[in-house]
Amino acid sequence: MNRITELFKIKYPIIQGGMIWCSGWELASAVSNAGGLGLIGSGSMYPDVLKHHIQKCKKATDNPFGVNLPLLYPQIDSHVNVLLEEKVKIVFTSAGNPKNYTRHLQANGVTVVHVVANEKFALKCIEAGVDAIVAEGFEAGGHNGAEETTTMTLIPQIRKAVDIPLIAAGGIGTGSTMLAAMALGADGVQIGSRFAASVESSGHTNFKNEILKAKDGSTKLTLKQLVAVRLIKNKFVERVEAAERMGASKDELQDILGRGRAKLGMFEGNVDEGELEIGQISSIIDEIKPAADIVKNIITEFNLSAEKIGALKF
Amino acid sequence: MNRITELFKIKYPIIQGGMIWCSGWELASAVSNAGGLGLIGSGSMYPDVLKHHIQKCKKATDNPFGVNLPLLYPQIDSHVNVLLEEKVKIVFTSAGNPKNYTRHLQANGVTVVHVVANEKFALKCIEAGVDAIVAEGFEAGGHNGAEETTTMTLIPQIRKAVDIPLIAAGGIGTGSTMLAAMALGADGVQIGSRFAASVESSGHTNFKNEILKAKDGSTKLTLKQLVAVRLIKNKFVERVEAAERMGASKDELQDILGRGRAKLGMFEGNVDEGELEIGQISSIIDEIKPAADIVKNIITEFNLSAEKIGALKF
Repeated sequence: MNRITELFKIKYPIIQGGMIWCSGWELASAVSNAGGLGLIGSGSMYPDVLKHHIQKCKKATDNPFGVNLPLLYPQIDSHVNVLLEEKVKIVFTSAGNPKNYTRHLQANGVTVVHVVANEKFALKCIEAGVDAIVAEGFEAGGHNGAEETTTMTLIPQIRKAVDIPLIAAGGIGTGSTMLAAMALGADGVQIGSRFAASVESSGHTNFKNEILKAKDGSTKLTLKQLVAVRLIKNKFVERVEAAERMGASKDELQDILGRGRAKLGMFEGNVDEGELEIGQISSIIDEIKPAADIVKNIITEFNLSAEKIGALKF
Repeated sequence: MNRITELFKIKYPIIQGGMIWCSGWELASAVSNAGGLGLIGSGSMYPDVLKHHIQKCKKATDNPFGVNLPLLYPQIDSHVNVLLEEKVKIVFTSAGNPKNYTRHLQANGVTVVHVVANEKFALKCIEAGVDAIVAEGFEAGGHNGAEETTTMTLIPQIRKAVDIPLIAAGGIGTGSTMLAAMALGADGVQIGSRFAASVESSGHTNFKNEILKAKDGSTKLTLKQLVAVRLIKNKFVERVEAAERMGASKDELQDILGRGRAKLGMFEGNVDEGELEIGQISSIIDEIKPAADIVKNIITEFNLSAEKIGALKF
């Protein structure tokens, strides 16, 4: 038991990150059934699709689950209405100002967590009254902060700045990395990449196979002039980088990016031309496993590592 | 006792990183006297200056100390001769191929450690027969790897790939971050930034004060087209970035860089126009302290954190 397991009423302080195109009701319910907290990633869903996933998730698990809500989503108010209609109890907001929806959601009985990548936004979260913070380091997949602060340096800094429950994200996918995050001051961890390569992930098999193939240096934080995003390097990323070396403007980069590339890569499986959002920890992921096995293995390794590390004394 | 303390015959598995313009004999001997391993940074020294620092260090401590040797140093053979003449027992090589000098140094009784930032070079180290490896993450100050792999992801990966003693570097400056590095699989830690802001550091006071002022996002890995280096953002870095956005060539960037900027910034204290090499962990450094206090505080916090983390079980 700790502050995170108590806050969400879960067994293990493991949150499955809400990921576009990967974390629908199947993954979220599998993680929640395994004792973690599953999150439906609403960023790639229309409001009616989100409603469908929440309803399916409720049927698939009796345990708590949540929804990740990117605040820059164009139909954000429709999404919020769906969450309230369906009486979702836990919402992780990201990519926006935590002040906009925290109080409204909390007034409707929702536990609200906001994702940050720097101290400034962690302090905004405190003002907004969130129930917990996710601090996400540079090594994380997908969209990421401009400061490029890594998990190793971000977590101690945020821990020093705020007292509320803190969840570390970025670079975590095993029991040892989870233990390291707790040593840095986190109360729990949010894990994306490891669950993107799970049986229940709705990502395309081609995408999952690219995760297994990834080595160190296979991912890159790119498109920094637009919104920085960590992707597996492929033909599309090479084209972006070539354009950047030539001094491409924002508009030119936006033209290269176009629309729908994340869906193209992660959901439709075009691994050359799509965006493949994944974290650096993909370098040590080498097997697609059921989400329940992933949770179990992480906790087993965590407990063994904690015992070993606890015996160290100099 | 562990593999690192046994290898170097030191009390604590804390290595003070060999840093140009900061770690002469005063800092190295202070760290060694405190039970860690001090390293003289030879990269900013002429061979006769290096000889002088080694001789002074021997007089200032009876404990083991070492020298950091960047293998791309122009007068590398003169440096190696100085190390052998002065019977230096521990050498950390970096920035080059570990095959070139490892056997030669070892044949003369030297313990050789090589610094890497990716798995490929860790495996080269094994072939070269080094005694230990430093794996340095993206968050570290100064020169850095092209893969941008963070300490959180690099250490588990290198630990999986090699069996020899492993020292983590990048993002470490407190007992908790040291514990996290050990949880990730390291046997010891190399700490730079925290010691750059010590009393015994030969860095300019203006530079030390910039370290204290640094917040998250104050440093940046820059000059990637030449050799990537993490610096505090200042007027010089802004000029580099403006040129890069315009599509500057390598030659144009080399012209902007010119010569002697590291000395200008770190040793002469021109914090606007010089290179200020420091790691992301500078964001939580807020006091210039004697090196002995730094070592003592880290170990005290490490032991407390280990006890706390060791009690975790889920």
